[in-house]
Amino acid sequence: MNYLLLSRLVGIVCLLIGGSMVFSLPWAHPALSNRTLAAPLPNEHVEWAGVLGLLGSMAICGMVGGTLWWTGRAARGPLYRKEAMAVVGLSWVLATIFGGLPYYLSGTMVAEQRPITIIEALFESQSGFSTTGATVLTDLENPDLVPYCILFWRSSTHFLGGLGIVVLFVAILGQGSAGKAMMRAEMPGPTKEGSMPRMQHTALVFAAIYIGLNIVLSAIYRLEGMTGFDAICHAFATMATGGFSTYNLSLGAFNSPLIEYTTIVFMVLAGTNFTLLYLTAVGQPMRLLRDVEFQTYIGIIVVVTIGIMFFGMRYGDPHFGDATEALRFGLFQVVSILTTTGYGTADFDVWNNFGRGALLLLMFIGGCAGSTGGGMKVIRHVLFYKILRLEIEQAHHPRVRRLLRVGGQPVEDPDLTRNILVYFCLILAIFIASWMLLITFEPDTTWGVARDDTGELTLITPTAPTEAHAVEIEREMIRSMLGEKLLDSASAVAATLNNVGPGLGVVGGTRNYAGFSQGAKLWFVWLMMLGRVEVFSILVLIFPVFWRRH
Amino acid sequence: MNYLLLSRLVGIVCLLIGGSMVFSLPWAHPALSNRTLAAPLPNEHVEWAGVLGLLGSMAICGMVGGTLWWTGRAARGPLYRKEAMAVVGLSWVLATIFGGLPYYLSGTMVAEQRPITIIEALFESQSGFSTTGATVLTDLENPDLVPYCILFWRSSTHFLGGLGIVVLFVAILGQGSAGKAMMRAEMPGPTKEGSMPRMQHTALVFAAIYIGLNIVLSAIYRLEGMTGFDAICHAFATMATGGFSTYNLSLGAFNSPLIEYTTIVFMVLAGTNFTLLYLTAVGQPMRLLRDVEFQTYIGIIVVVTIGIMFFGMRYGDPHFGDATEALRFGLFQVVSILTTTGYGTADFDVWNNFGRGALLLLMFIGGCAGSTGGGMKVIRHVLFYKILRLEIEQAHHPRVRRLLRVGGQPVEDPDLTRNILVYFCLILAIFIASWMLLITFEPDTTWGVARDDTGELTLITPTAPTEAHAVEIEREMIRSMLGEKLLDSASAVAATLNNVGPGLGVVGGTRNYAGFSQGAKLWFVWLMMLGRVEVFSILVLIFPVFWRRH
Repeated sequence: MNYLLLSRLVGIVCLLIGGSMVFSLPWAHPALSNRTLAAPLPNEHVEWAGVLGLLGSMAICGMVGGTLWWTGRAARGPLYRKEAMAVVGLSWVLATIFGGLPYYLSGTMVAEQRPITIIEALFESQSGFSTTGATVLTDLENPDLVPYCILFWRSSTHFLGGLGIVVLFVAILGQGSAGKAMMRAEMPGPTKEGSMPRMQHTALVFAAIYIGLNIVLSAIYRLEGMTGFDAICHAFATMATGGFSTYNLSLGAFNSPLIEYTTIVFMVLAGTNFTLLYLTAVGQPMRLLRDVEFQTYIGIIVVVTIGIMFFGMRYGDPHFGDATEALRFGLFQVVSILTTTGYGTADFDVWNNFGRGALLLLMFIGGCAGSTGGGMKVIRHVLFYKILRLEIEQAHHPRVRRLLRVGGQPVEDPDLTRNILVYFCLILAIFIASWMLLITFEPDTTWGVARDDTGELTLITPTAPTEAHAVEIEREMIRSMLGEKLLDSASAVAATLNNVGPGLGVVGGTRNYAGFSQGAKLWFVWLMMLGRVEVFSILVLIFPVFWRRH
Repeated sequence: MNYLLLSRLVGIVCLLIGGSMVFSLPWAHPALSNRTLAAPLPNEHVEWAGVLGLLGSMAICGMVGGTLWWTGRAARGPLYRKEAMAVVGLSWVLATIFGGLPYYLSGTMVAEQRPITIIEALFESQSGFSTTGATVLTDLENPDLVPYCILFWRSSTHFLGGLGIVVLFVAILGQGSAGKAMMRAEMPGPTKEGSMPRMQHTALVFAAIYIGLNIVLSAIYRLEGMTGFDAICHAFATMATGGFSTYNLSLGAFNSPLIEYTTIVFMVLAGTNFTLLYLTAVGQPMRLLRDVEFQTYIGIIVVVTIGIMFFGMRYGDPHFGDATEALRFGLFQVVSILTTTGYGTADFDVWNNFGRGALLLLMFIGGCAGSTGGGMKVIRHVLFYKILRLEIEQAHHPRVRRLLRVGGQPVEDPDLTRNILVYFCLILAIFIASWMLLITFEPDTTWGVARDDTGELTLITPTAPTEAHAVEIEREMIRSMLGEKLLDSASAVAATLNNVGPGLGVVGGTRNYAGFSQGAKLWFVWLMMLGRVEVFSILVLIFPVFWRRH
């Protein structure tokens, strides 16, 4: 392990994080941070707490980053796979810590009289960088609780996280043989594949597409009536498939079909392979349309939306009054969950069980490989299906091996089958273990049920205690709330591990992660990181053997 | 495909199924079918309907089996892997069909005035042969609904299913290289491995152990106060890890710690590798005690029981009044679910969420390889853990391959890693697909909630409609019941696919599968079969290419 090189590269990342905070500073002035759905603040309302928090964080980032960079300034040498994994993993950990500083130092409030804890600041920061969009902040619309400049920093972490993903994972780590098999479409570049100039070229092109789409979408949102502040914040959250909104009702606050359909289009783009977007931009749209992953991605959106509309209208769920409404709310939620954005315009937790179950499963599918979308990626599911089919067909002929094919082409990488299976099994193992941890250690109070010394169960928010039968109603409500613990926990794990954000029940669309215990929040921080860096880059870091020199 | 050989072998299986029905006939006489917990029936109460049902079924088995056998009587030739899979798969399908005839022809009643349907008869039959123990019969204690001789046939299917498993899968299919790697302990035999005399020797030894344990357990139950009828039926269900009882309260009806602890010991034995039981019997107990799978199996029982006892007592759940009670009910439920027996002495669905969740996960672990226990088998989980650990360690060194080791010995089969991973992924895929089917198509009425033309939800069994606030109570109950649909469906799939029996909510310990729609029941039949024959033997049958001559 080349520790000096590691120190230099990680130092640079810290300096970049700190440096990017400068863009949040101007929004502390009320003249800039005008909100679409709120009266403008008086001109003397400059958010000094936010400014101090940001400046303090920048100072810390500068000191730590500068020291690391200075220590390793003379380091040279090639960046091997092992170092690359260490850089990615460590950068992500440090970004989470430094990104959480502004919340903590500015004294952001989770709720009235409830300042944010260090763990909650880490949660909000990780949720931003990993483009998850899960939040612990219960009121985003009160600048006394969450200063607007901190709200802007919160959305910036989405932008930075998305940029990090397209540059680090897609352009650099996606160059391996398994990465190529998953990406399929070759990026045209100046030199032979896998070389440094080629990676730099890909990274630059991807960054340009990503930033370009952010600018275009901000402009469109502005034209559709948002203020500059809201337009930029929502563009960041859409293109990173993050989902942090600046309103408590998420994107549903605008209640505008125009904004919603615009967002649907850009969420779909953000979840599409960036190589194919580039090829489309340079005049080869057929590469996109003929791509098996893109076809599956669009197919899933269409089929699930039809199913959601059908069952939603049949069960007479809220938001399914007529076909227009059903399409508007059904399509939005399907695209938002599949691309792992997690914006809400309707709380799908109150829908029928088909809708709830289908959206829960969509979380695990995610966007396409080579996009900012999270989850397990569409192509892995395509390959998974093909592998299992092949295995069953061959069960009676164990000695004949047929080749795996994607889009008619045989896959050359001999390790791909094992890699895909291991990935599914690893996600399964992490999911089950996390679920077991939650249901074992998370107290019932998270589900709104308290227990007194005698073991008696009571609702934390009691209902009409003077009325007759209130006891029975309360008992049934307790039953109903506690009965959901297993499912809610599973959905919370799914929503964080796949970087989606909202889930079912206590983490449903109209609620948030504030109620969870600090331990659970810390575990969610870990899950969001694991999910974002596709498990391996982080998991290897916890093995001591990884850090040994050799 | 050697169709004539197939015909002959399948014909013999049909004749054996029909022939074994003869043992249920005597129990139609009330002098024999004395029940432990019910007054003896009057001497003139001979169950002619049951007798006619059994005789009719025997005639049909004889005709079909005889015809098949006669058609293929001249067939000779070796039994290749492909033919072996076809025989196993087809035998299982035909056993299910013929085993269900007695219920249907005798006019068995699912409930008062509700004769069994063909699909329900198939369900009960498959549940018996696959040693699942899930039932659609709501009242087992009324001989007017379910004749005692039919009840005996129902328990016999457990015995036959268990025998089929130890002979077919363990002795014959377990001889392949992957099978050996999973079985680990070599069975001493007269000739070289894999040869026909060796398989016959193993099959005979296993059958002898199995039948011997059934006889011993029947005798013990008899001494502990059961009548002969109940003793034999419960011995069948215990040793096959089935779980059909002859009482509505399952084994809990006896309310006897002695019977429960006896059952725990024999469930543990039934879930242990039969080769190791044999070696212990011939004086090599250290082979058993040093076996990594057996150690893990016992370890899981101990650890989960301690957890269940701790949380059960802490939450003050029913059956956890003091440590003695907690041990008695906790240990029983853990062993019953882990070995996939599915007997109940307490309804774990009313326990705290740790208990519910932990038992749900135990279903997927199951017994040891080479036992009558269902589920995915302990050794697969041991290997799964080792494989994932190895893969993570090697993520930064993709070119170095370390060997998988079990109990210190490297595993020689190069396909084992892929086989284990494929198996986990296949179970996952079947589980998810079945869950999706259930939540999509199963009507809410299964959960006790009806919907009228205007979309208004009502309880099928209304509660105190005249009281004040009854409406609110009803609304909360509906919320509570429907909220459980996703989890209940998942548990029903887990309990049938792993051949356990009871699950959570609508399929919890005190309830049964009667409420499900006919379509769902048919799907459960398929899942029980898939789970029992370890997926592949059945899945290949649905591919047309499997049936082509070549």
